[in-house]
Amino acid sequence: MIVVLSKNISPRAKELIHSYLKDRGFSVREQSLGDDTIIGASGKGAVDTRELSILPGVERVAAASKPYELASRETRAEDTVVTVGGASTPAVKIGGSRITVIAGPCAVESREQIMETAAMIRESGAVILRGGAYKPRTSPYSFQGLGMEGLEYMKAAGEACGMPIVTEVVSPELALQMKDLTDMFQIGARNMQNFELLKRVGSLGKPVLLKRGPSSTIEEWLLSAEYLLVSGAKDVVLCERGIRSFESYTRNTLDILAIPVVKGLSHLPVIVDPSHAAGIRAMVSSAGLAAIAAGADGLSVEVHPRPDEALSDGHQSLYGVQFEKLMRDIEALAPVVGKELVRTPGKYGK
Amino acid sequence: MIVVLSKNISPRAKELIHSYLKDRGFSVREQSLGDDTIIGASGKGAVDTRELSILPGVERVAAASKPYELASRETRAEDTVVTVGGASTPAVKIGGSRITVIAGPCAVESREQIMETAAMIRESGAVILRGGAYKPRTSPYSFQGLGMEGLEYMKAAGEACGMPIVTEVVSPELALQMKDLTDMFQIGARNMQNFELLKRVGSLGKPVLLKRGPSSTIEEWLLSAEYLLVSGAKDVVLCERGIRSFESYTRNTLDILAIPVVKGLSHLPVIVDPSHAAGIRAMVSSAGLAAIAAGADGLSVEVHPRPDEALSDGHQSLYGVQFEKLMRDIEALAPVVGKELVRTPGKYGK
Amino acid sequence: MIVVLSKNISPRAKELIHSYLKDRGFSVREQSLGDDTIIGASGKGAVDTRELSILPGVERVAAASKPYELASRETRAEDTVVTVGGASTPAVKIGGSRITVIAGPCAVESREQIMETAAMIRESGAVILRGGAYKPRTSPYSFQGLGMEGLEYMKAAGEACGMPIVTEVVSPELALQMKDLTDMFQIGARNMQNFELLKRVGSLGKPVLLKRGPSSTIEEWLLSAEYLLVSGAKDVVLCERGIRSFESYTRNTLDILAIPVVKGLSHLPVIVDPSHAAGIRAMVSSAGLAAIAAGADGLSVEVHPRPDEALSDGHQSLYGVQFEKLMRDIEALAPVVGKELVRTPGKYGK
Amino acid sequence: MIVVLSKNISPRAKELIHSYLKDRGFSVREQSLGDDTIIGASGKGAVDTRELSILPGVERVAAASKPYELASRETRAEDTVVTVGGASTPAVKIGGSRITVIAGPCAVESREQIMETAAMIRESGAVILRGGAYKPRTSPYSFQGLGMEGLEYMKAAGEACGMPIVTEVVSPELALQMKDLTDMFQIGARNMQNFELLKRVGSLGKPVLLKRGPSSTIEEWLLSAEYLLVSGAKDVVLCERGIRSFESYTRNTLDILAIPVVKGLSHLPVIVDPSHAAGIRAMVSSAGLAAIAAGADGLSVEVHPRPDEALSDGHQSLYGVQFEKLMRDIEALAPVVGKELVRTPGKYGK
Repeated sequence: MIVVLSKNISPRAKELIHSYLKDRGFSVREQSLGDDTIIGASGKGAVDTRELSILPGVERVAAASKPYELASRETRAEDTVVTVGGASTPAVKIGGSRITVIAGPCAVESREQIMETAAMIRESGAVILRGGAYKPRTSPYSFQGLGMEGLEYMKAAGEACGMPIVTEVVSPELALQMKDLTDMFQIGARNMQNFELLKRVGSLGKPVLLKRGPSSTIEEWLLSAEYLLVSGAKDVVLCERGIRSFESYTRNTLDILAIPVVKGLSHLPVIVDPSHAAGIRAMVSSAGLAAIAAGADGLSVEVHPRPDEALSDGHQSLYGVQFEKLMRDIEALAPVVGKELVRTPGKYGK
Repeated sequence: MIVVLSKNISPRAKELIHSYLKDRGFSVREQSLGDDTIIGASGKGAVDTRELSILPGVERVAAASKPYELASRETRAEDTVVTVGGASTPAVKIGGSRITVIAGPCAVESREQIMETAAMIRESGAVILRGGAYKPRTSPYSFQGLGMEGLEYMKAAGEACGMPIVTEVVSPELALQMKDLTDMFQIGARNMQNFELLKRVGSLGKPVLLKRGPSSTIEEWLLSAEYLLVSGAKDVVLCERGIRSFESYTRNTLDILAIPVVKGLSHLPVIVDPSHAAGIRAMVSSAGLAAIAAGADGLSVEVHPRPDEALSDGHQSLYGVQFEKLMRDIEALAPVVGKELVRTPGKYGK
Repeated sequence: MIVVLSKNISPRAKELIHSYLKDRGFSVREQSLGDDTIIGASGKGAVDTRELSILPGVERVAAASKPYELASRETRAEDTVVTVGGASTPAVKIGGSRITVIAGPCAVESREQIMETAAMIRESGAVILRGGAYKPRTSPYSFQGLGMEGLEYMKAAGEACGMPIVTEVVSPELALQMKDLTDMFQIGARNMQNFELLKRVGSLGKPVLLKRGPSSTIEEWLLSAEYLLVSGAKDVVLCERGIRSFESYTRNTLDILAIPVVKGLSHLPVIVDPSHAAGIRAMVSSAGLAAIAAGADGLSVEVHPRPDEALSDGHQSLYGVQFEKLMRDIEALAPVVGKELVRTPGKYGK
Repeated sequence: MIVVLSKNISPRAKELIHSYLKDRGFSVREQSLGDDTIIGASGKGAVDTRELSILPGVERVAAASKPYELASRETRAEDTVVTVGGASTPAVKIGGSRITVIAGPCAVESREQIMETAAMIRESGAVILRGGAYKPRTSPYSFQGLGMEGLEYMKAAGEACGMPIVTEVVSPELALQMKDLTDMFQIGARNMQNFELLKRVGSLGKPVLLKRGPSSTIEEWLLSAEYLLVSGAKDVVLCERGIRSFESYTRNTLDILAIPVVKGLSHLPVIVDPSHAAGIRAMVSSAGLAAIAAGADGLSVEVHPRPDEALSDGHQSLYGVQFEKLMRDIEALAPVVGKELVRTPGKYGK
């Protein structure tokens, strides 16, 4: 790490920077280079570069090493391929040269609804079933999900259709309860920096789908992935779902270029949730197709047999026929980006 | 709630809007007004207006009632005055025409450090002691706090100096353990939408300091307060600490006008954390003074006896003499904004 | 337009709202609807709804009519097809079911450079030549362009290769001088709300490429298009080039969903500048392909024969072979989105 | 300037970075420091560090020197004090330990209105008269100002009350026409990066009030000040007026901490426009007082004798009695921040 000093730095400020770095485990060497005086800090120290950069007398900080390690492509050059399911359902892979599509309703509403949806999306080519049993909602007065009952319906639907399932976990206590019922945990956007949850879920060793917080930088997102990996998770999939900006025509601003950025920085697969990004059905397919064109490893799409009756997010859920059309378009697009759409065997496979 | 329809809305879309509202518990009435066709929805229904506003055929949605109720000034016109402590330490009030100052280190580092800091800030006029025992950190490799041991040091320091204490709680499981040791729970910015945590903490009935999430709208912030109030909390204090914007010279962008906005919308007290907003010592006092000038009910300030040795956030912690100067400036400013600085009796009182 | 009143509005505030609306040319009618009291304002009045919405006693404002008219799809349902060139070069169309690709260097640097680039992009299938003669630069110390001399080189290159040209205009005075040399004016992102420039350029009646300001809402962008159309322009093409957000890994955040949003709100063609959005060569092709997948009517891409020697923006300019690959990918993608890539006749046509 | 290289940089990429820097006028030296390989670039070269930072193989860029020079406090350590007026009206100073208050209506509407307003604000202690003759408006259908006629009314009002005037200039052509009628030019927020306008206005040598663009970083703002200074302006005053964020309760987000940041980076005075920042009368005084508490050198406040009848921005204009109260509060606050409110002699002076 390099610290460039201000031209008019006081001796006292310089001394403090030296001790700040030494206290955090770095060995330190100061020297002139061209017009500048710089401090090189090396070793296994840990520091918040943001904090360092606003110390008096620090002009700029340049960290050559990333603050995350296990998630970094420098640590592992080849793409990680994550496997979901494989016990009571077929194993599905995410990453590499595959396009993997996860689909299902926003929330599990009843045994019938999830069963019907599962069959419908399976028919169109989705290979993992999504659905919320516990729903974190901005308002305490909104539908909060069916809980463990909903999760059991999901598991049954997944097994009936031969698809592993993914569902959101909202507290450390629930993670343990849900462990044997789900094939993959989802960490929702609002919990991306709920570090206690990350540590607990990571320690369970199951695949995790980590959504990006709506105002998280890519670096913070990868640091949250690092929490999961350090705690024991091996199979982490990143999911971009839109960030918060000043524009309010769409629910969020889909950060489409986060896909190539993350693929450069990390070996983890990255998929996109076009439903939350767009927030309105009419734009979900455009968002999904753009994501694949930009290099995403897959999608997580909200689909509902009767969106107008959905208890949550119906306005952004696709109808079955729209989803089928999207899957056909993805299949046509796949070779343009050098990928192949994942199909699994079984009674619904093709 | 009023829904203004698009001029070229289809009959099918109109029908869907009607049933969308009815399904969510509203009684519905459509009519023309001037150039527009509108639907008035009344009753006790619950709806995400953002969702509603992007349904096909909806031009705009205008909700006359706020989505929060217990936190709203419409429900309670007079200012809420929150009382913290009162058992083993003097009771301290926040709200009304008072300015209440909370101070202490970012993190509890040792028994000596917290004891020394407590005495120092008490001498300058702070009336509540802050300090982190559990630290949510962006990186898994950063110092994570002393845990329950740290909390015990804080309680001892608070009692020794006659000040109630406030500390951050990071998971539902810990809330119960911490309950008898702290006088006030703090919900940190990153956990503002950790709804399971809000429900648990709210149910314990103790005072809560609710920090605003760095990318949360004021409405989302008040909805998180509503979670606390609905769950059983009575004494909620809001804390603005800066939002995320494109500007990177400061750690966050202090949303100074959130203070008068929130005071108009809600009866809850609102204080400011100038330390996290500024992120650098040299600007903390300016930020604190500006907050009081804008109408804040108090501050929560990071102070450390030797900031350069702090294990976290030392760069934004004030020295004792700076804090003392800030307190004097606040005292001089108080009458300009029609308020009075809170002093409590005891061996350190004045 | 509907104004929903606060429940506790004072008679004085209500009276002021009435007169505010009447003063601005509306006829006004107040009534109760469900739980709410509302004012319906109709007629040809003009009002900034943002201003209105923060008047005391106003709860929400819901404007059924858009603030722009000539740019609105409500005024004109079918897609506008813009024609560029046609005098000394072939006419090229933008809009409808076409994909039209504009390409060229960031800045004209010399007669040879623009001539070489023009031939190269023409060979790969671009049909309009872009290039900056006047360069608005953040720093007064950066290269500011060759001026009229550069524009003459461009015109010569366009004619030699049979392509109309588009170039940026930075002041009202220059617009008149440039009129006979360029086939299309570009209004740059930083000048999107330079209203004097919009009025002058609009009055000249030539095609205009209007880039979105980096922090402009879609509504403000369409209002700037309205300035052009009101002033006399008939052929306006919108160009999304990324917005400013908190994320700094990319130069800007490409607002990919602005494409379907704008196509819903307006009849004007919308293209994307993937070079400025991405800001780095390695991501330009991903951004461009994603834009086409999301429904854009074309691209404006920076290409340079030797990007490493470019005087500006070389780091985001494609090499010839990269551009050729992108064009092939677009051609393969076109049928998936129901479009066709524009080819023009001539010695470089296919 | 220091460039830290990626650990896995290719020889080709390294070579390109060297030539990129040499081509831009730097002398270059590469070396190892601790774990890192860095390139030090020195000399009078000019480079966009953002561009440089995203070149392949560049990990981070750290520029020790600011991209602006004339505006930098490194170039001039003492505060610049700007003098406005002094010919037909008394000279008024801005900067140093003064608080200078500019006030007046958003727009000049008639001779009587500006005369009445001028007398009113003079009575309360304002020392410079503001008012818009040319109004840049988001919509082409909004009131665009009285033009030169309005400016003549302003000049007459300023002379009658003994106050210099400041008014906005919206195009290079108008700058010359307005030169002899105004004492100070205002560059509006939307024109902050209208570089042709900056160059022209700067060349006229009069005092300039430079508003910050709503999405401009502090660095971009200072670079625009640099354009003015390089072109010949000597007396530049910066004006913070709120930035664009995701929060929509206020018209803009007042970046209160920009004040101490700018005072650290630059020697130029910085004032605040609380009217545009707040966007609603009820919060203007809070914003103004907070700005002074944070260290601003003054305010520019919208005041109108009858705000409800104002042709623009009446909702954010103070009534005379509110302005008088604000001035008294500022006077009481001034000694707390070590400043004094500017009063000028004359028939309205005190």
